[in-house]
Amino acid sequence: MPPVYLDNNATTRVDDRVVQAMLPMFTEQFGNASSKHASGMMAAAAVQAARGEVQRLIGASSDSEIVFTSGGTESDNLAVLSSLEAQEGRDEVVVSSVEHPAVLSLCDHLSRTRGIAVHRIGVDGWGRLDMDAYREALGPRTALVSIQWANNETGTVFPVLELARLAHAHGALFHTDAVQAAARVPIHVAAFGVDLLSLSAHKFHGPKGVGALYVRKGVKFHPQQRGGRQERGRRAGTENVPGIVGFGCAARIAESLVRPESASLGALRDRLELGILGTVPGSFPLGDPDNRLPNTASIAFENLESDDIITLLSLQGILVSAGSACAAGTMEPSHVLRAMRVPFQLARGAIRFSLSRYTTAAEIDQVLEVLPAVVAKLRGTPEDFATDSVEEASESELHHAPAGARTMEARS
Amino acid sequence: MPPVYLDNNATTRVDDRVVQAMLPMFTEQFGNASSKHASGMMAAAAVQAARGEVQRLIGASSDSEIVFTSGGTESDNLAVLSSLEAQEGRDEVVVSSVEHPAVLSLCDHLSRTRGIAVHRIGVDGWGRLDMDAYREALGPRTALVSIQWANNETGTVFPVLELARLAHAHGALFHTDAVQAAARVPIHVAAFGVDLLSLSAHKFHGPKGVGALYVRKGVKFHPQQRGGRQERGRRAGTENVPGIVGFGCAARIAESLVRPESASLGALRDRLELGILGTVPGSFPLGDPDNRLPNTASIAFENLESDDIITLLSLQGILVSAGSACAAGTMEPSHVLRAMRVPFQLARGAIRFSLSRYTTAAEIDQVLEVLPAVVAKLRGTPEDFATDSVEEASESELHHAPAGARTMEARS
Repeated sequence: MPPVYLDNNATTRVDDRVVQAMLPMFTEQFGNASSKHASGMMAAAAVQAARGEVQRLIGASSDSEIVFTSGGTESDNLAVLSSLEAQEGRDEVVVSSVEHPAVLSLCDHLSRTRGIAVHRIGVDGWGRLDMDAYREALGPRTALVSIQWANNETGTVFPVLELARLAHAHGALFHTDAVQAAARVPIHVAAFGVDLLSLSAHKFHGPKGVGALYVRKGVKFHPQQRGGRQERGRRAGTENVPGIVGFGCAARIAESLVRPESASLGALRDRLELGILGTVPGSFPLGDPDNRLPNTASIAFENLESDDIITLLSLQGILVSAGSACAAGTMEPSHVLRAMRVPFQLARGAIRFSLSRYTTAAEIDQVLEVLPAVVAKLRGTPEDFATDSVEEASESELHHAPAGARTMEARS
Repeated sequence: MPPVYLDNNATTRVDDRVVQAMLPMFTEQFGNASSKHASGMMAAAAVQAARGEVQRLIGASSDSEIVFTSGGTESDNLAVLSSLEAQEGRDEVVVSSVEHPAVLSLCDHLSRTRGIAVHRIGVDGWGRLDMDAYREALGPRTALVSIQWANNETGTVFPVLELARLAHAHGALFHTDAVQAAARVPIHVAAFGVDLLSLSAHKFHGPKGVGALYVRKGVKFHPQQRGGRQERGRRAGTENVPGIVGFGCAARIAESLVRPESASLGALRDRLELGILGTVPGSFPLGDPDNRLPNTASIAFENLESDDIITLLSLQGILVSAGSACAAGTMEPSHVLRAMRVPFQLARGAIRFSLSRYTTAAEIDQVLEVLPAVVAKLRGTPEDFATDSVEEASESELHHAPAGARTMEARS
């Protein structure tokens, strides 16, 4: 039996149609898109078609606004570095405290080595941005705001329209990491006033190793990877033709499915989340219940270690990930959960369940069947007892719920 | 009939075995190599196996010396940028004037923006490095030497062992772009004393979008792409698992074939080159006849435009590339041929024929049959006349051969 894969925010299964689209590019139309002969021109045409498909997924005005990269991390790095160079005389960057390391780690480095001032805007217990602090941080020296469309751990969606508007009022560029949001919620860069946006194909059933940076027409751009004149001089290096073709195919499929999938995934996710919260004592939902990716449920299991849960579930063929990362052998809650001030006894037992178009109701039921026993086993409580005491326990937890964890009532 | 593809220095057909190795990584073992569950661990193990295969291809001492990247350009950029940071107090770089743009263009940029001094060492008419100028350029401020193992246009192979030895005598790091050399000539980084070496999978029947930088143990390394802790913190971003697995497979195949293929390719290449030089008047070989990649022949056709030759050959199903690049609509000879001081009337008509393991003798014969007529047509000479006058013409050219073009005698 194939495993129940609920780690789709880490990566996704490549769609069979995407594989079929890529295959001829390896052995038949394998030309270099920069070559001038027939084989090169076919490769260039395939890249160009994919560019249009990515353009349509995010509502860009022109396919020339799409710069293909090696993935989300490169896109994020490129957006930050290019913007700082483009906005001469401005040396401040505004980010959220829950950005992906591809933004935070680079900003820390730039702060240490180039004296860039980095404003990290905090979030509340639901993972929502502190808008007052955001407004205060913006100023005439702000070169760039980089705030994600949705968080990878909790799924919390950010108010991009408003964030971009405020950034622009101060002459700052607005970049958003949409690696988790794209193909999960509708995205329209032109309508949202986004200047730069990062994408990664493997988060929505495309291949790993390929991504894109959307660069709005008129935004000054400074290339980082230098060499040949590929991507109109914006990103040197032989185009990853099969990867780009796969990316385009995944974008085309996602564009047609994002709305219906969003509804069906949301329903499955709610079934999973409500099922867990209703049967596992000491479990608390994390993230913004009102603005959240439809495929993501982040749940904290009190007084447990995420790694232990992951391991036991993995043995039962259920694949999930932690909301916390293990650094240097020590269990440290993730920067996201720390920013949300999720108490340690919850954060260290946080599990992220992330669904995809391949997730079935039967798989959700399988998790709901297995999980209570796994938790009971780890807590050393007999399963019967744990199951019996569910209602009572979750009721009593409601009133003692630590800051940063929502109760069931808060979700209404 | 499939085209006769003789543009393998631009890119190669992916080996069927490589495609087969990659396929399961898209839809079955599609996990994120950083995930802690079973699927993630399988992906991580596949990446690790590939790392060992790349290690063996280049004779590295440990697989931890291999850092996977998105390709040759990223590897070159990374080598230069990391080395400059690692060699604090040293602000000079020594390169050849025929390096790939991934090195030259970055160095130009660093010279303009960071005040790095870049010494461009010239080459002679055969494309061989001016060793006296090289020795003179090295000094206590040299942070890095970056000189390719073999040139992409002419195939000229550089004396890496000696270059590395001299660089080290001055405390400089030695980087070599082996993108064209790997899998075409035997490479042994440990024996050659190389500190950093760039590879790209798609030049030897692996997939596009993946490459590696070899970093010798003990060499200080400064990551450039920042974010997650992938590649032991040396290159952030989700690992391109299918690409890396394909790279590993291509490396394994190449490692076992490099010696026999080198001989057979060299024989085919010579048959092609001697055939052309013997039948096409006004054709001259470019590159070092004694130290050259076995798969590459660069030939200049006097008073012709490369693009016209490429187009006519492409119509006949023969795919080759120019030794010159078209910049902004104007035919400008490439920086390589200019550095070799190949006269304009030759350089603008330079064609690179680059073979691979798929090239057959029948294909070579097809080129030899078609090419004289194509050249004659472009010159406006009746083919019969052109063919008749071959011997006379090439004899007379021998004595008027412009500097930078070798005569047949020079090849002995």
